[in-house]
Amino acid sequence: MPNIFETLQAALGADIVIDASRVSERASSYWDPSPMRAAALVRPRTTAELSATLKICHDAGQKIVTQGGLTGCVQGATSDADTVIVSLEKMNAIEEIDTVGRTATVQAGVALQVLQEAAREHGLIFPVDLGARGSCTVGGNVATNAGGINVIRYGMMRSRVLGLEAVLADGTVISSMNHMLKNNAGYDLKQLFIGSEGTLGVVTRVVVRLEEATSSRNSALVALAGFDEVTQLLKLLQRSLGGQLSAFEVMWGDYFRDVTEPGYHRAPMDRHYPYYVMLEAEGANADADNALFMTVMEQALSDGLVADAVIPQSDTELRALWEIREDFMALYRRKPIFLYDVSLPIREMPAYVSEVQARLRRRWPDSRCDVIGHIGDGNLHFFVNPGCEGEHQHAQSDEDVYAPLKPIGGSISAEHGIGTEKRLHLSISRSDDEIALMQLLKKTMDPKNILNPGKVL
Amino acid sequence: MPNIFETLQAALGADIVIDASRVSERASSYWDPSPMRAAALVRPRTTAELSATLKICHDAGQKIVTQGGLTGCVQGATSDADTVIVSLEKMNAIEEIDTVGRTATVQAGVALQVLQEAAREHGLIFPVDLGARGSCTVGGNVATNAGGINVIRYGMMRSRVLGLEAVLADGTVISSMNHMLKNNAGYDLKQLFIGSEGTLGVVTRVVVRLEEATSSRNSALVALAGFDEVTQLLKLLQRSLGGQLSAFEVMWGDYFRDVTEPGYHRAPMDRHYPYYVMLEAEGANADADNALFMTVMEQALSDGLVADAVIPQSDTELRALWEIREDFMALYRRKPIFLYDVSLPIREMPAYVSEVQARLRRRWPDSRCDVIGHIGDGNLHFFVNPGCEGEHQHAQSDEDVYAPLKPIGGSISAEHGIGTEKRLHLSISRSDDEIALMQLLKKTMDPKNILNPGKVL
Repeated sequence: MPNIFETLQAALGADIVIDASRVSERASSYWDPSPMRAAALVRPRTTAELSATLKICHDAGQKIVTQGGLTGCVQGATSDADTVIVSLEKMNAIEEIDTVGRTATVQAGVALQVLQEAAREHGLIFPVDLGARGSCTVGGNVATNAGGINVIRYGMMRSRVLGLEAVLADGTVISSMNHMLKNNAGYDLKQLFIGSEGTLGVVTRVVVRLEEATSSRNSALVALAGFDEVTQLLKLLQRSLGGQLSAFEVMWGDYFRDVTEPGYHRAPMDRHYPYYVMLEAEGANADADNALFMTVMEQALSDGLVADAVIPQSDTELRALWEIREDFMALYRRKPIFLYDVSLPIREMPAYVSEVQARLRRRWPDSRCDVIGHIGDGNLHFFVNPGCEGEHQHAQSDEDVYAPLKPIGGSISAEHGIGTEKRLHLSISRSDDEIALMQLLKKTMDPKNILNPGKVL
Repeated sequence: MPNIFETLQAALGADIVIDASRVSERASSYWDPSPMRAAALVRPRTTAELSATLKICHDAGQKIVTQGGLTGCVQGATSDADTVIVSLEKMNAIEEIDTVGRTATVQAGVALQVLQEAAREHGLIFPVDLGARGSCTVGGNVATNAGGINVIRYGMMRSRVLGLEAVLADGTVISSMNHMLKNNAGYDLKQLFIGSEGTLGVVTRVVVRLEEATSSRNSALVALAGFDEVTQLLKLLQRSLGGQLSAFEVMWGDYFRDVTEPGYHRAPMDRHYPYYVMLEAEGANADADNALFMTVMEQALSDGLVADAVIPQSDTELRALWEIREDFMALYRRKPIFLYDVSLPIREMPAYVSEVQARLRRRWPDSRCDVIGHIGDGNLHFFVNPGCEGEHQHAQSDEDVYAPLKPIGGSISAEHGIGTEKRLHLSISRSDDEIALMQLLKKTMDPKNILNPGKVL
């Protein structure tokens, strides 16, 4: 009897299905250079080929992991020697851009940055944006409901998807390639596949909503004396800039000081403040937008909301400011670093951060916990370093970061998803009845548990 | 053995459960003054009472219809003498408004307008808005994924809901009262209950996202010579107004002429144009926004995009302009009127409207088909009058309006839902595999088919 690799290759061809040894030439992920392991890797060129692949695997009870750009942070696309990997790398066409309806129809394997650039060529933008833009794929962004730095203005991936095509565990193709903002004809099935990390179906194509390109940009790095000032500044900007605010990235003082230590980024202002915010507004009228931005910034300074501000005078200066927020390699000089992605109500943030830091210091007196956040979205990222050696440190750090979320209704995953890494912590953020309903959906749509098993649930 | 009314009243009390005769004192709906029919009507005060109600009905295999404000357009809340009606009218509290996180936590029975006014008291807005605002409830808005006039800027109800609590058919309470913009901890269960018209669960409470209030408003009624000019104007406004465009309501010429006939609304400009648009922009800076708006309008006039324009000079004038769009009682002097709510890609609209009108005229030479639309959302409303008497006219009109949607990927329901009225047409907009998956979800979550049976599917 042929094994699963032989069966798939016989059905789909040697160009589409590659074997374990060729799979092992690939790195496991962006983060893990060890060889990728699998029984076979399938690279369908069409939805029909993917459907055939899933039908074969379903009949054989063969487990499948779907892979996009492999930049996920929660081990949601890991495989082992018994896995069939489905990679959407050959389904990488932008099928259509509709400039009147402002939509793009794209295959799942298109890199995020490729879509962004294609939209720009038509005077439009695809506003979901994150650091991995060059490698991550639109299909992966959909499967994980990606967030990133523009959520405050443009929403997460879920709010960008108008239509979607997915293949179910048994090979059935669910094609809901809607192009309209409004469509209430029956259940909104696409929601099942967005953010479920490949456990309910494999996303093959999507219709996404684009926006008119903005033509003005005003940015600033500001320093603030307290968290109340941070939330008041956010409110002032959202009220006064008429919807133009596109980024409001908060850095706690320790983070700022760490990444601006000598040898890393140059500090463009005094390093002693408790909070720093990188903020950006985008509009359509350069002169008017700049005048408004400066007026609001002056008001924030004169009201004492902002203690200091740097306005970049060139693209080079702007990039240097953004790098303080985005390039945190300085933190990785300490090892290990445990990265977190939590969300919680904004008003709970100062107390929550203090509690996590206190817990960590009680456990490890020399520990460090640097914090940055998309606070307008309720989202914080932590970088925890224990400051000593020991066993089970990651699990202990998880405990300290996650446990205080439960009483305040926080989430263990704001934008990274659950994958394998956070699976055992899911009950901190979701009730037993919620998890039971998730399991019921999973069992209904994937009764043989072949789609990305062991992830999420 | 006690009947279902007696069982429910014994469990919940006479204040909560009323009998058929008292139910019949109510009108069937906003549209239908005939007496409401039911075996009993339950008005739970709490989620626990609703859970108890559903558990009793589930054990008895008793069908349930959930009712909000009874303003729906597709007979999605109709009952008969064997039905137990669940009305959320006593769950009408606004539990909390968080001005820092910009969220409101509300019970399902709160009227939309009450929520809008409560948000305004805190300098915030709840931007979902529609004509039935005084009667429709937030729970009904969630269950039907309500749209309305601000979707182009603020999205539909689905994009406003951050957290949700619902009771399943068997009484299980699924509480997902998330407050954050970002939460990727497992499947996004709330999506199951939004827009599924009460067939998968009963929504009891929601957390919705508010926005900072705008403080400037600029409006105009404009006339245009062709549909290309309409789409170009939309694009110009979306690009030039920096995200301030909040309404762009297109009226086809026949509609405009009908509602401005002598005895109805005064026509503020010449009545011979093929298209009229009521447009509005909202921002945060009165002087700057007005200057920008006037600059863009002047450009649209000088470029020949706009043939004529009226800028209201007072609130009274503004209301008079909006009434042309919103008060279409003039159309109802002809009877019958069949109302439609379809969506389709914008670029397909002129050909689709022409085809529908040609089909109707072939069938009924004196027929009229007035058209208005939220075209930025891909959404058109038709008012069809056959212009003669006959049998089965509604079904024939349905055929003429819906059939041409199929080849262009249009939807038979943009924002009204499916209810009973459009159920038999669902296959025009959804594939057999999509409908089979909807039925699988329904069967999984409501195996006894007690929740709003016969609606949607």
